Parts: sequence; C-alpha cells; structure tokens
Amino acid sequence: MSAKPSILIVGAGAIGSFYGAILKRAGCAVSVVMRSEYDAVVANGIQINSELGELSYRPDHVYRDGDTPESAPDYLILCVKVLPGVDRAAMIRPWMGDNTRIVLIENGLDIERELADAFPANPVTSCLAFIAASRVAPGVVDHKAYGRLVMGSFPSGIDSETRALADLFIEGGIKIDLTEEVVGERWRKCLWNTPFNPLSVLANGADTATILDTEGGADLIRELIREVMAVAAADGYPMDENLIEKNIAGTRKMPPYKNSMALDYLNDRPIELDAVIGNVVAIAQKHKVSVPHLNTVLVTLRMRERLKQAESA
Amino acid sequence: MSAKPSILIVGAGAIGSFYGAILKRAGCAVSVVMRSEYDAVVANGIQINSELGELSYRPDHVYRDGDTPESAPDYLILCVKVLPGVDRAAMIRPWMGDNTRIVLIENGLDIERELADAFPANPVTSCLAFIAASRVAPGVVDHKAYGRLVMGSFPSGIDSETRALADLFIEGGIKIDLTEEVVGERWRKCLWNTPFNPLSVLANGADTATILDTEGGADLIRELIREVMAVAAADGYPMDENLIEKNIAGTRKMPPYKNSMALDYLNDRPIELDAVIGNVVAIAQKHKVSVPHLNTVLVTLRMRERLKQAESA
Repeated sequence: MSAKPSILIVGAGAIGSFYGAILKRAGCAVSVVMRSEYDAVVANGIQINSELGELSYRPDHVYRDGDTPESAPDYLILCVKVLPGVDRAAMIRPWMGDNTRIVLIENGLDIERELADAFPANPVTSCLAFIAASRVAPGVVDHKAYGRLVMGSFPSGIDSETRALADLFIEGGIKIDLTEEVVGERWRKCLWNTPFNPLSVLANGADTATILDTEGGADLIRELIREVMAVAAADGYPMDENLIEKNIAGTRKMPPYKNSMALDYLNDRPIELDAVIGNVVAIAQKHKVSVPHLNTVLVTLRMRERLKQAESA
Repeated sequence: MSAKPSILIVGAGAIGSFYGAILKRAGCAVSVVMRSEYDAVVANGIQINSELGELSYRPDHVYRDGDTPESAPDYLILCVKVLPGVDRAAMIRPWMGDNTRIVLIENGLDIERELADAFPANPVTSCLAFIAASRVAPGVVDHKAYGRLVMGSFPSGIDSETRALADLFIEGGIKIDLTEEVVGERWRKCLWNTPFNPLSVLANGADTATILDTEGGADLIRELIREVMAVAAADGYPMDENLIEKNIAGTRKMPPYKNSMALDYLNDRPIELDAVIGNVVAIAQKHKVSVPHLNTVLVTLRMRERLKQAESA
C-alpha cells in the first residue's frame, strides 16, 4: 500500500469541511486553512453530522492566512465562493508547490481559467458538487443530503491524478462521476442555476413554485434556458432542446425550493453573480449571441449590488 | 358670467386634493369623496402648502363611499392609482350622472378604455400630471414643484368641454398643454416611466444615477426605451429615435432621483405595475412586437408581488 496523498482545503466552510472529512476517512493527511473559525477548529476539530457515519475529524494542520505551510500539499482543494474582489490566485499562492494539483469544488461557469492562467505548470481538476450541507456553528457542519461530485481535468479529459483523487473520494464513501468534458457538465448545471438562481434573488427570494406559477413565469424561465443553451452551443457544448421542458417538469415535481443563491441573498451574504450568470453573458458577448433576458437579470442585480454598496459605504 | 361647473374629486390624495384646490380657486364648486381621511377633512378642510399662494379650501361636500350625492357633478375627476383589484368603474358609478364627464388624472398607458367602455355615453378627458406633491398628514398636502397638465379628449381630439376645463385650470393658476393626441402623449411619458420606474423597483429602490452608472445600466435603459418605442410605433404612435439619447442625457443632468414608483415600493405601498409596464407588454403581444427586456422586468416584478401576497396571507 503506497502512502496516501496530502490534502489542503482552502475555504473550509460546509462544502470544504465535508469533502475534507471524506478524504480523511479515505486515509489522507487533511489540513485546512481557516479564516473566521480558526480557534474553534484548533480547539475541537471539525464536527460533521451526517447519515454517512462518523466523519468528524481533527485536521493534520490548521492554518491561518499568513502562516507558512510545513510542506506543499499534493492536492489543494479550493472551496471558496467565486466573488468579485476575491483574488483566488493570490489566496492559494502561499500554499502551492511545484507539484501541487489545484482542485476546484465551486459553482458556476468559467471559474477555472483564472487559476489555470495563474499557475500554468500546475494541473487543475474541476468538480461540481451536488450536495446539501450547511455550517451550523463554528467548526460544525450538518450534511443533509447527497454528496456526489462530477469531476474531470480542466479543460477536458481525465488524467491519472484526477482519477486517483476520484478513487479516494469513492473510498471515503461518496459517489463520483468522472467526465471527459467537465466544462460541458458546468454548462449543463447552468441550464438550471443560471435561470433560477438569479431570478429568485431578483424576486426577493422567491421559491421555485412562486417562480413557475407567476403569470409568464414559466415562459420567462424557458427563454432564459434557451439563451443559456444558445451560448453553450456557440461555446462548443450543444445540448438537446428537450432539456428545457425536462428542467421545468423536474422542477415542478420538487417541493417548492429556495436555492442557495436565494438563501445567500435573504441572509445578506454575497452572491456568486459572475460565476452563475455574469460569465455566461460575457461568453455570449464574445460569441455575439443575443441574451436579452439574461442581460436584464444580470444588470438589474448589478444595480442592486451597487445600491447596497453605496448604502453601506 | 355663467355659473361655474361642479366638480367631484374621487381619490383625493395629494394629486386630487391639489387639482381640486386649483378649480376651487377658479370658482368651481368642488366636492370630494374621501376614504381614510374623511374625519380630518370634514373637521379642517384640505390644507395645501404651495408656492402658488393660498390654496387651502373646504370642499362643498365631503362624501364617503356609500353616501348618496346631492346631485351628479359636471366633471368627475378620478385620481386613484390604477391597481389590480381596484375596479374604477364600480368606484365612480354611484356618482355619475347622464351628463357627467369623466376626467382622469392618472399615470400610465391604456388606462382610459376600461372607463370609456363602462360609460359609453359619458365623454372622457384624459390628463397627464407633471407635478411633485405629497400628502404629509390627513388632509394636508405639500405641493413641492410643477403642476402642469397635458390634456385632451379620449381617444383623440379636444372637445369643447375639455377646453372649458383647461380654461378653469389656467384660471386657477396652472399651466395646461392641450393635445389632439393624448394617447401619443401617454406613450411619450412612458418612454421614461416604463423603463426607469419598474427597474428602480426591481433594483430595490435605486435612484437614476445608480441605474445609469451600473455596468451595462445605460445600455439596458436604451434597450427598454427602444422596445417601448417599437410598441408605440406598432400602436400608431411613432417617435423620433433621438429621444432615446435625449432621455438618457436629460436624466443624467438631473440630480439623482428616486421616482414615485420606487418610493411607493420603499414605503410598502402598492405599485402601478399594469398601468406603467403590464399594459405596454400586453399591447406588444397584441401587435407581435418582441419585448424581451420589458417582459423580464414585468414578470420578475409579478413574481415579487406574488411572493409578497403569499407571505402576507
């Protein structure tokens, strides 16, 4: 049995703490970089409440910003939100070694490029998380449901280190879908997230039923999905037109649901506007695809952010 | 000198109280139908603070809903907001006589048809008010600026009774612009109101500077104005393309400004969604004009209204 690789989680919120626990259970050395909850985690470790069994753990090292790492990790897993003003490349630079692989478990589209450009010699594995988990106290995470990761090498393919990491996640107890086209998978996830998430914020935190049952609501969602599809196709990722009605029918079958962006908004946390819709509109402009519905939603949300900043200044 | 006509103001808020005062000063008998502020007005009359001079008055009659009028007025001036669930025809029916003329001093587009249809024998005069006034206490109105009315007979022309009423307003001290095409004037006012008002609500009460200075904001306003223009043209009221840049440049010159719909929203009062944007989108659909930006704004605001109703239920 060869030694298990070392892992460093940067941004150990609910998602990062959970996947760190999975890799810890698989036998890896797992360290974390904490911001606000450093003291709690040094004192008590990370507690995970989950139906997957015992997952609570003491990280091998608990670091803070500004600390000097003992050694560079084999895999640096980045789980911070993608927000304007958050320089993710600067955030991970102190922890990167020559052979450190960057692993993203983050939402949105076109979020890899910035890091691939900043660290051209370090390969990138990109993951989409399908999980319901939330932090309930400093260092304490409730894992509510799911946990599957869709993962692949960026920009495409599945290299041996991506595969090795996938095996560790599976060993730790979660389901992995490897993909040769992780960017295409991101587009597919955007088909739902890009219409529903920002719209629910704009409608002051409306749930899925409110969105779909409003006069004109389902048609607006159709138009938004159609625009995302047109941009994806122009970007090289065509999708089946049937997905529009499948997405809507699937959403109608779920109980009324407030998505994570709506919850962020209602709890006055920053929202991942660029990752979820801004980058889609930027790619549309690059390919000269007309996206009037998406653009109206994006610009109006930007107005709101601007107003909020002005009022809190 | 012939006897001055009798006036009944239905919806004597800031606007109705002010224009009633003007006609009172011109020598008319002016009565009012009050809802919430009946007692205060019976006790103290209506107080108007204005640079136009003494305008406070005691109405000839102060009525409540359900009262029986002594006689039908020559002019019934309707100043209520145009809101879903407010049946304006039912509201004025008890006060209408065979020879009563309906006068609307109300915002929005396509707001006359409902009343013209309900009272086919009674002619309609339609007015757009350019005024800054607000109610500061029961029966007390601050008139801050302006007061000009643009008025004409509905659907077009200027008949003798519209002209007679205009003369009375002028005699009372305000500026009147008579128009042969009052519907065209409503479209012209919509060029500003339809883009800016609902967008400011959607952006949580953003002022004009926030709207125009946001990345993509001025372009979004341009698209919205262009769509309003396309609908107006399809409806028989073409306008000069130059008005787009004129509207934006004029807005930039004003101090940052929160429009009345934004203020209604921020003060948790109902907003005139259909009159200001819903009717524009309905007319677009009738003429098969594509209005994706307007539609996104409208449907998202409807989602918000639906959410609000559900939460207050």
